[in-house]
Amino acid sequence: MKKFVNDPKDYVAEMLEGLALANPGTLTYVPEYNLIMRADAPREDKVSIVQGSGSGHEPAHVMSVGPGMLDAACPGDVFAAPPADFVYETVKRVASPKGVLLLVNNYTGDRMAFEMAEELSQADGITVRTLFIDDDVAVEDSTYTVGRRGVAGNFFVMKAVGAAAERGAGLDEVYAIGEKVNSVTRTMGMALTACTPPAKGSPLFELPDDAVEMGVGIHGEPGRRREPLQPATALVGELVTAVVDDLPFTSGDRVALMVNGLGGTPVGELYLVYGIAHKQLAARGFEVGRSYVGEYCTSLDMAGASVTLTRLDDDLLDLLTAPAEIPIRVF
Amino acid sequence: MKKFVNDPKDYVAEMLEGLALANPGTLTYVPEYNLIMRADAPREDKVSIVQGSGSGHEPAHVMSVGPGMLDAACPGDVFAAPPADFVYETVKRVASPKGVLLLVNNYTGDRMAFEMAEELSQADGITVRTLFIDDDVAVEDSTYTVGRRGVAGNFFVMKAVGAAAERGAGLDEVYAIGEKVNSVTRTMGMALTACTPPAKGSPLFELPDDAVEMGVGIHGEPGRRREPLQPATALVGELVTAVVDDLPFTSGDRVALMVNGLGGTPVGELYLVYGIAHKQLAARGFEVGRSYVGEYCTSLDMAGASVTLTRLDDDLLDLLTAPAEIPIRVF
Repeated sequence: MKKFVNDPKDYVAEMLEGLALANPGTLTYVPEYNLIMRADAPREDKVSIVQGSGSGHEPAHVMSVGPGMLDAACPGDVFAAPPADFVYETVKRVASPKGVLLLVNNYTGDRMAFEMAEELSQADGITVRTLFIDDDVAVEDSTYTVGRRGVAGNFFVMKAVGAAAERGAGLDEVYAIGEKVNSVTRTMGMALTACTPPAKGSPLFELPDDAVEMGVGIHGEPGRRREPLQPATALVGELVTAVVDDLPFTSGDRVALMVNGLGGTPVGELYLVYGIAHKQLAARGFEVGRSYVGEYCTSLDMAGASVTLTRLDDDLLDLLTAPAEIPIRVF
Repeated sequence: MKKFVNDPKDYVAEMLEGLALANPGTLTYVPEYNLIMRADAPREDKVSIVQGSGSGHEPAHVMSVGPGMLDAACPGDVFAAPPADFVYETVKRVASPKGVLLLVNNYTGDRMAFEMAEELSQADGITVRTLFIDDDVAVEDSTYTVGRRGVAGNFFVMKAVGAAAERGAGLDEVYAIGEKVNSVTRTMGMALTACTPPAKGSPLFELPDDAVEMGVGIHGEPGRRREPLQPATALVGELVTAVVDDLPFTSGDRVALMVNGLGGTPVGELYLVYGIAHKQLAARGFEVGRSYVGEYCTSLDMAGASVTLTRLDDDLLDLLTAPAEIPIRVF
């Protein structure tokens, strides 16, 4: 395993410590709960937004904490849901009179932890709602999922609800905005290589040199099929077609287009992928109204990429372009 | 080779096309010269800043074009200097009455191309100066270098001269600022893996599974030594010590600390590296006044990282924190 790591069991704690040291004054780190929160949270004048998930998907979600985005993130260990009491503790620390919105990508372990934390928090008199995100079109059920998985499209939900909360919207309105964004967002990804979790020390699955995993999950879960490596235009075409056909998006739609790197793919390749996807969408009659190229939701060091589309209207575009300030500035 | 690529000879052109499509209205792309420039360049009220280099180091330099940073970038093919006539054409297109500053990382091919372009431009009556950047402490001469190499510390020069130019400083003042930043900036990097150029299709050098290249160049040039893979704290300690001892930085110095990923290392590991470096510097009596974690100057898909220190004073900190707006927002 060729990684920057000391004892693999300290990987998450050392990453979070680095994140806190790089952002003094703006982020607070509470090591006993893996908690990264805004230094000024809770703000009584806004709904607090919280997300957690397994680690290994950075910048989701610990590097997405800041004004206009998340108020707190509580990750678990690599690819493992956070314990329910970590989530519960996080909710208590950012509880606002305007309420707390929990964002949860749809994985069974995450759902269980957040639903339990929601119940415990409500018993304490905290107003909480929980929104599940399931933008991945690749497969219906998966290794860790009943229903669809939540992947990079989650960024658009975070950004929209973060902006609405910052403007003072109430909990029900913020929830409705998030639900709407999730309903018009679709993603599919593919792996060129497997990823290597620090504690395992070897690739999570085997992928031959001449094959790709089309529709891969962000924990290396199987996708739709394993197929031969092809030129980029063909691979991107499969991702674009899968995403467009699912909603379906239709000619004339204005969309935000995100090309997300899975951790091991350099940004030069991501822009090449972006150009291909943009041209394929234009040829189908779509207007790309906003562009995102970079890493948003990764899978450790996996080489690969995902394509996300969100159907834009003026309200959503306004929320997506609102100011935000997070350690990883990706918009 | 597992990459998103069509015909490898089109790699750079397709990447640049994607970059232009993702940034309509703010960037102009001139395919025949690999030229990416601000859509509003030249601005008559400011010095124009230009940098070029081989491709494969993104976001350096084509994704660093925008207000407060570069006015234009003219890359060559992967790891190859831009042709002199590409540079000359770039200078002509961004020529401002206040002059043009060319930034050049110290590689022989780049120096030749930019020096020739400078002569041609001056013969046309354009006021041009050229600044060479050589922040890499690893080795004195290298495969493509007489003297030291220019690597990720180049970012600090770009940011400082970009901010000064935006504020209306004259060419000589902007040049002097860049020269000063280069004089107080030091970098060393290391490779966990080799990188694979698209046109080669296989790793550029061999690096055993249990070894790292300490002091590697950003084109895979040999570093100081090949040594066993060790825990992150030991590896980072070697980088920090090499950088600190070189200037030398001394206890009490206020510094900017950059941890730069080389392309294949996920951001979670980069924050882990950052935390270790930050604590080692604090233990030596340094004050980290500003932090940078992410990808600034990469080497295709190489797994690895570099550590850069810049000695801060109030003037430099003011320039580094000035507003800027580029495709990759890394500050």
